Amino acid sequence: MSSSSSSALEMEIIFQYIDAHQSDFIKDLKEWVAVESDSIQPHLRKEVMRMMTLAADRLAALGATVNLVNLGSHQLPDGQVLPLPSVILGELGKDPQSPTVCFYGHVDVQPAKKEDGWNTDPYTLTEIDGNLYGRGATDNKGPVLAWINAVETFRALKLAMPVNFKFVIEGMEEAGSLGLEKLLEEEKQSFFSDVDYIVISDNLWLSNKKPALTYGSRGNACFFVEVECGSKDLHSGTSGGIIYEPLLDLIALLDSLVDSTGHILIPGIYDGVAALMEEERKSYESIEFDLEEHRNNCGVKKFRYGTKEEILLHLWRYPSLSIHGIEGAFHEPGIKTVIPAKVTGKFSIRQVPHMDTSVLKKQVRDKSFLWNSPNQLKVSMPLGAEPWLADVNNLLYKAARRAIKTVFGEDPDFIRDGSTIPVARMFQTVTQKSVMMLPIGAADDGEHSQKEKISRHNYIEGTKLFAAFFLEISKLHRNLYVTSQTETIN
Amino acid sequence: MSSSSSSALEMEIIFQYIDAHQSDFIKDLKEWVAVESDSIQPHLRKEVMRMMTLAADRLAALGATVNLVNLGSHQLPDGQVLPLPSVILGELGKDPQSPTVCFYGHVDVQPAKKEDGWNTDPYTLTEIDGNLYGRGATDNKGPVLAWINAVETFRALKLAMPVNFKFVIEGMEEAGSLGLEKLLEEEKQSFFSDVDYIVISDNLWLSNKKPALTYGSRGNACFFVEVECGSKDLHSGTSGGIIYEPLLDLIALLDSLVDSTGHILIPGIYDGVAALMEEERKSYESIEFDLEEHRNNCGVKKFRYGTKEEILLHLWRYPSLSIHGIEGAFHEPGIKTVIPAKVTGKFSIRQVPHMDTSVLKKQVRDKSFLWNSPNQLKVSMPLGAEPWLADVNNLLYKAARRAIKTVFGEDPDFIRDGSTIPVARMFQTVTQKSVMMLPIGAADDGEHSQKEKISRHNYIEGTKLFAAFFLEISKLHRNLYVTSQTETIN
Repeated sequence: MSSSSSSALEMEIIFQYIDAHQSDFIKDLKEWVAVESDSIQPHLRKEVMRMMTLAADRLAALGATVNLVNLGSHQLPDGQVLPLPSVILGELGKDPQSPTVCFYGHVDVQPAKKEDGWNTDPYTLTEIDGNLYGRGATDNKGPVLAWINAVETFRALKLAMPVNFKFVIEGMEEAGSLGLEKLLEEEKQSFFSDVDYIVISDNLWLSNKKPALTYGSRGNACFFVEVECGSKDLHSGTSGGIIYEPLLDLIALLDSLVDSTGHILIPGIYDGVAALMEEERKSYESIEFDLEEHRNNCGVKKFRYGTKEEILLHLWRYPSLSIHGIEGAFHEPGIKTVIPAKVTGKFSIRQVPHMDTSVLKKQVRDKSFLWNSPNQLKVSMPLGAEPWLADVNNLLYKAARRAIKTVFGEDPDFIRDGSTIPVARMFQTVTQKSVMMLPIGAADDGEHSQKEKISRHNYIEGTKLFAAFFLEISKLHRNLYVTSQTETIN
Repeated sequence: MSSSSSSALEMEIIFQYIDAHQSDFIKDLKEWVAVESDSIQPHLRKEVMRMMTLAADRLAALGATVNLVNLGSHQLPDGQVLPLPSVILGELGKDPQSPTVCFYGHVDVQPAKKEDGWNTDPYTLTEIDGNLYGRGATDNKGPVLAWINAVETFRALKLAMPVNFKFVIEGMEEAGSLGLEKLLEEEKQSFFSDVDYIVISDNLWLSNKKPALTYGSRGNACFFVEVECGSKDLHSGTSGGIIYEPLLDLIALLDSLVDSTGHILIPGIYDGVAALMEEERKSYESIEFDLEEHRNNCGVKKFRYGTKEEILLHLWRYPSLSIHGIEGAFHEPGIKTVIPAKVTGKFSIRQVPHMDTSVLKKQVRDKSFLWNSPNQLKVSMPLGAEPWLADVNNLLYKAARRAIKTVFGEDPDFIRDGSTIPVARMFQTVTQKSVMMLPIGAADDGEHSQKEKISRHNYIEGTKLFAAFFLEISKLHRNLYVTSQTETIN
């Protein structure tokens, strides 16, 4: 029997086991979803703590060494001090011949209440028409359990583990991953020293049916522009006509940032944008993306562009500027004849590779100060989350692509995310390892929304995908290792 | 003794009486200020009711016939139904040879709490350095009592009443004069049928020391511009770059309304503005107005104009456009990467004589619809308060000018108000009588503010002013009447 057919047989046995244990895997997910591990509402913090213990126990049951790292506490805006949930650092296997794959996931969730518009209790996993509804089903408890159950399958079948596993599981992702970056920095030379690859499964496919691999995300540079004429609000009757009104200044400034086609008018801003190569441009053609469906989901009449390729290019690899609102101006219903004394415009630029965020900051400042008003102007960038881009020719993506082909019978879409994925960028920057986003949830899973779900199909096939990926990455990594040795010998 | 010297003697006796009864008049004011007749806070409505009864009793004590007109009730936004305070319609004297002067005032007040920054209890009238501090001292209890005490002086001295008096005293002015306009309409053919002149004393001088007569105010046309792309807010990551963002549209639209010099860019808007005649232009030269002091009061570094005349022209007789804020956009502290689906820009135009508000509404709509976006646009004008302009050559102003010269030894400033005075316009439009604003409070009285006051000097000399005005208007009116008869005979 050739190595290829022995591995095909092994895969077959694994898939059969996973299919046969569907009910157990769904029971596991039901147990996890039942924990209200909402990291945003302070009174539920103890449930996050309980969830971390459950996850740690589950890893220990795999045979992993589990370390719950205490991150101390944090203070809420109201002064309340809350303990931070520990981060789980887990390890399973130390075979020097095998690659070490680190999986990142989180087991905290967004808030959810039945009365927000759920058809079922959000903390009782409920299957309807092949979909498993519940808070955290797809974000991110389902994918974390799918990974764990894929590992468990090898253990249960007494198969050799194809890779060494590391786990980073946190409980504060929905609240900004407080303390995580510091922990990664601290563990760079220890926990991460022998990690070869990092896999994150905390996003969704672009389509409802076709699998995807995510290799990049835009950044998020947020700007505050504050204009102030004095310390007290004025009245449009007693001052209107003689004052340099801050809100008029601010609106002129905001209006000067972008034209009616969406083109950003900040000088130099497009200089840093990576040129679009033919290969990349061509890759957009095969992506499954229903423009009309996406337009309906957004609820708008018309997009700025008419083709799938233009839409995806402008969502993923060109910068965009959005204005979010104004602080300090009148915002309530009704009428108020106020001239606000201090207003702060808030906008953000979704920057893309290879824009430099510090250069962008300077460009925005230079543009803002091109004005002519006696009012005081302050420009700040309270957030400068960087874009992320991975090399799709990396082994990691090759292995995942093969595993997807095996499980789903088709090649994945190679996609980016128009939003920022801080954790991908953070892992890549801190550890300097290859990072891949390997989603198993479908586009319509409704993460963060009412009626969040993962389909039974995606949950179970996703478990198979992870198992197949372990085998593929192991094979490719060993081949590379052998090839390297051969080359050395030659 | 000539008629002129007999009237001078009468004036002297009246002034002596007023000076001698200062303490009584201040005691009256203290009693009225002690009533928390705040018409805005629902739980104080019963105090407004009590205040109306006090005022009615005070008029009855003058010998006036008093009618408390029930206006029913009104509903608050929270659903609570509150009774409206009755409006007092009072009458004193019916001499067909005498003119009938109707005085409008209000005895409700703005909210006040000591902890808001008062040095004294706002409901305990307190004299410090010649100033009488208390809520309602200048707005409007002081002036109402000054008028009543001026009438009382004639009665106490057993002098013939120079004019017939009518009184309209309300208790909802600070809450929008609910029901007043309807009452005026209803009483047009009855209560107002024999009224010759209407006097309102519910505003302030332009300066702290120099008396003023107010003959006009700007209007207030408020506009809402609503831009909507769909029913749900979007996210700048997943939609930024491909959406026609409503807030970008709105900001471009708002920015197109006015240039950096404050010039309004709505075509045709200046066509209706009354031409500035030499006589009017010259009248601004003598007005006492400290530009530097006004700039400090506004708390701004620089005005749009450098001279007193330009400032007053742009505050009083040229239109201005102010943007107040945006409803539906992000307005809180911090960051939110939202693309709001529906935003409503709120701006107002202080229109001036002889702009036509319905024409203005059309001009704003025409300008707004000059755009190119697939988003839905709605333009509305929820408020169109008209400007007001009186004829300063009217008898009413002549009489007041003479009375001011007699009491204060100088000619008044003829001023306008940049804000809207709805009640002046309302009385003029409904009754078709001559309306005059005859303030007795000084510019620094702080109506609506903490530390509201009227000075003892202004309160007492204001009482004299009203008494002198009764004699002057009576004389001028009778002269006119005699002249008319003579002319008829000739």
